[in-house]
Parts: sequence; structure tokens; C-alpha cells
Amino acid sequence: MPAEVISLKEKLAKITELWRPRIICEVNDFHIKLAKLKGQFVWHKHDEEDELFLVLKGTLVVKTNEGDLTVNEGEMVIIPKGTMHMPVGEEEVHMLVVEPKSTLNTGDVRNEKTIDELEWI
Amino acid sequence: MPAEVISLKEKLAKITELWRPRIICEVNDFHIKLAKLKGQFVWHKHDEEDELFLVLKGTLVVKTNEGDLTVNEGEMVIIPKGTMHMPVGEEEVHMLVVEPKSTLNTGDVRNEKTIDELEWI
Repeated sequence: MPAEVISLKEKLAKITELWRPRIICEVNDFHIKLAKLKGQFVWHKHDEEDELFLVLKGTLVVKTNEGDLTVNEGEMVIIPKGTMHMPVGEEEVHMLVVEPKSTLNTGDVRNEKTIDELEWI
Repeated sequence: MPAEVISLKEKLAKITELWRPRIICEVNDFHIKLAKLKGQFVWHKHDEEDELFLVLKGTLVVKTNEGDLTVNEGEMVIIPKGTMHMPVGEEEVHMLVVEPKSTLNTGDVRNEKTIDELEWI
């Protein structure tokens, strides 16, 4: 794996589909992803993986079983494993995600939003 | 670990020392860190850990045994394990670091810049 400079702006510009995170790089057993979202996702949890969401644009609300978390641009939040949560964006949100490669986007739920093999971008 | 919203700007404002990364959160076996640097570090490598540097302010140059990488604000670079490298900032650089908890800041080198136990901030 050669060292390569990655522009978040350029990668984001290539994403046209909401709720379909794309992998931009790997760091040991972790993937770094970019995602665009708007509206609400599905309630789920990850039994083994913590998730980090860093908001690059917009305001992300993460509903959890312990309350709502509002994450603005330049802010991040960790959703610990086992925590029921649902990301929501009233307006379009762009975010960077840091999580183990084993993380399934819909966690313990399977529905039409589940993506087993995320593409690189 | 309760979910908590973290402002990068607020955390950065608390860092007064150059070349002393601070841990801001953990994601499974990874640490997310913030660092300020200026000048040049020390040539080193990490035998087991890849490192991700995301530049939040300024221009980071990572000298490597395969050439120099210039990383501007909003850009990131992965330094794969085993790659000899040295971060350099002509002007002050602020960056976010994503790497396994096991990562020692000076890698396979021990000198006055080595910090065995990074503090949280």
C-alpha cells in the first residue's frame, strides 16, 4: 500500500448516493469511510464495534437509547458498541466514519438499507 | 463509555505543547488524537501500525523513504507500517491522528521526543 494523499473534498464530490458509505482508506483493521445522508436511517446496534462519526458538513442527530446527540460541523461522536442508535439528518449531512472493517452498516438489523460489501471510492 | 459530542476546535484550544499528541477518544483498539507541530520530528517507522494524519490547519509535509508527501488542510495521508517517515511543518500544523493504541509516537526510535503514556485531553 503506497502512501497517498487523499482529499476529502474530492472524494466527497464523487459520492452521489445517500446512505451508501464509501471506503477511502484502511488503517490496520479499520476502515475510514465517507458518507452522505439525509432523512433517517434505521435503529440498530453493533455488538462488537464502536463507531466514530465526524461531521464535515451539516448537522447530524444521532438518536440513541440514552437520548439524542446533536453533532455539528467540526464535531465528532463515538457510538459505543451495544448502543442502540439511529442517525438522522434533517438537511444533507456529510461525514467521515472511523470503524473496524467488520462493521456492517445496519448492525444487527437486515433490511433494504443493508450493504454487505461497501465499495471503495 | 457514554456517547459524548467532541468539538475538535475546543480540544485543540487546550493543546499548548508542540509534538505532544493528546488522546481525544477511543474506538475499539484505536485512539484518535490531536496534535500540533512545527519544525521537524525524527525519522522513524512503526513495525506494526499504519498511521493516519488528517490535516486540520496548515500544511504538513511527511518525508518518507519513497519521497515527500504534502498534505494540506482537508487532506489526509496514511503512512503504512514499516515506512520510514518524518513529519515536518514549516508553519504550525494541527492534525487529527488515527492509529492503533499500541502506537509509540517515535516508533522504533527512542529519544527525548518519545512519550510512553500520552495524556487524554
